[in-house]
Amino acid sequence: MKGAVLTRELDKVASVRNPTPRGQAAVDAVLDTVDELIGLAGATPEAVGVAVPGIVDDTTGIAVWSENIGWRDVPFRDLISERTGTRVAVGHDVRAGGTAEIRLGAARGVRNALVMPIGTGISAAMLIDGHLCVGDGYAGEIGHMSVGTDDPCVCGGKGCLEAVAAAPAVARAYTARTGRALETHAVTALAQAGDPDALAVWNETIDHLATALATATTLLAPEIIVIGGGLSKAGDLLLKPLETALHARLAYQRRPRIVEASFSDEAGTIGAALWARDLL
Amino acid sequence: MKGAVLTRELDKVASVRNPTPRGQAAVDAVLDTVDELIGLAGATPEAVGVAVPGIVDDTTGIAVWSENIGWRDVPFRDLISERTGTRVAVGHDVRAGGTAEIRLGAARGVRNALVMPIGTGISAAMLIDGHLCVGDGYAGEIGHMSVGTDDPCVCGGKGCLEAVAAAPAVARAYTARTGRALETHAVTALAQAGDPDALAVWNETIDHLATALATATTLLAPEIIVIGGGLSKAGDLLLKPLETALHARLAYQRRPRIVEASFSDEAGTIGAALWARDLL
Repeated sequence: MKGAVLTRELDKVASVRNPTPRGQAAVDAVLDTVDELIGLAGATPEAVGVAVPGIVDDTTGIAVWSENIGWRDVPFRDLISERTGTRVAVGHDVRAGGTAEIRLGAARGVRNALVMPIGTGISAAMLIDGHLCVGDGYAGEIGHMSVGTDDPCVCGGKGCLEAVAAAPAVARAYTARTGRALETHAVTALAQAGDPDALAVWNETIDHLATALATATTLLAPEIIVIGGGLSKAGDLLLKPLETALHARLAYQRRPRIVEASFSDEAGTIGAALWARDLL
Repeated sequence: MKGAVLTRELDKVASVRNPTPRGQAAVDAVLDTVDELIGLAGATPEAVGVAVPGIVDDTTGIAVWSENIGWRDVPFRDLISERTGTRVAVGHDVRAGGTAEIRLGAARGVRNALVMPIGTGISAAMLIDGHLCVGDGYAGEIGHMSVGTDDPCVCGGKGCLEAVAAAPAVARAYTARTGRALETHAVTALAQAGDPDALAVWNETIDHLATALATATTLLAPEIIVIGGGLSKAGDLLLKPLETALHARLAYQRRPRIVEASFSDEAGTIGAALWARDLL
């Protein structure tokens, strides 16, 4: 987990990076990281913003559920507020990153956008009519939209986008095709170099992403789709072919541009800081 | 097209029903119907609400495009406002019906809902965090979400939900299976009576609807899905099996109830009246 102390102008004063344990230890680690940052700042901040993964209700500040971390119904806003005596905003990590992209980054200036990081998982921040959608914490789970394959997903479903197009899926598909085990970035590099196996895997990944984004576009009508996360590092190997594949699937729908995120690793931190500043 | 004069308490004072021509004649027919209603009312109303199909920007009051009617960029709000000298609200017919269901009908009291009429076409009104989504007129086009088949759609796409699960598609599928031509309601009646061919067609329709609704649920997280339009008249033949099929496709997602619309033919009129009343 990452944390930072920022000024009102978003200049970074201090930052920390700590491991994320599981279950109650993860809850304690979040609280300890906040304490550590307050110690580094030398004073209680005017407000605290926290972004966590899983199902998170930004309205109540409760981390409802995370399969990966293994917590359920953690009232982070109240816990941190009582501990620090200051204002606290809590929300979903992808919506925090989305907030950074929408207010300051690649999606600045539009009222309808989709911000989709592709890393070990896939999720999206949805901006519709200028409103960032929460759905009591359940909205935007594009990674668990079925793209029609039979691949099993960690969620218990099958054919989920995340199971076939997140970063680990690219590596898995390459291994299944060739019998060789490579990290995702190595597969990407091979595809960039024109390796036929890597390219076949890559094109299939793009197909799955385009299928999911065509559906999302039909429902949500974004003007722009911002791709973040590890896979976005592939740059033009990903973005242009994905935009072409998406547009080919659309008829009368509005055709969104697909662009790379402005903030990479920092998006969540900046978004959480913006939420904290909103409380002032 | 239908029109009505209502009091502020939504009591109906007068109503008319006129044919809908195509192109510019349809624009004129809308304006004439407004005039006719004003004549019936005996006075200029305090406000006018108009709901039209296709791509409609509720914010600007412009009917952007309708394939069926054949108009493009008609500034209905300004046209009617100039003609009548009163306040005018213009929006999408399905969002008008959704507004009626959300404020007064089957979706009353929730902040996240999907209202989906199934008639000759399929579209949806999406309520997220209490906000009715517009997307410059392009949001909610669930009828043109692909469910993965190769069936051609009027929009130019293929596998669109509307092409395989709207009312005409039920009749088409029955004819394709049996060589017998029946109206949709007759196929529904046969399915109700246990006819194996009609039931097979019906179950396939439910499968397609469940596929699309599972995707919509994953993205939008509705607490309730309201089904309207002609096909909703099938009642429990549709609603319970559809809810079961939807829930079977969901993993950790919130499980929406599926219920029948409260307003049938009147939903659009009541919704447009609510929009008009909002202007007062």
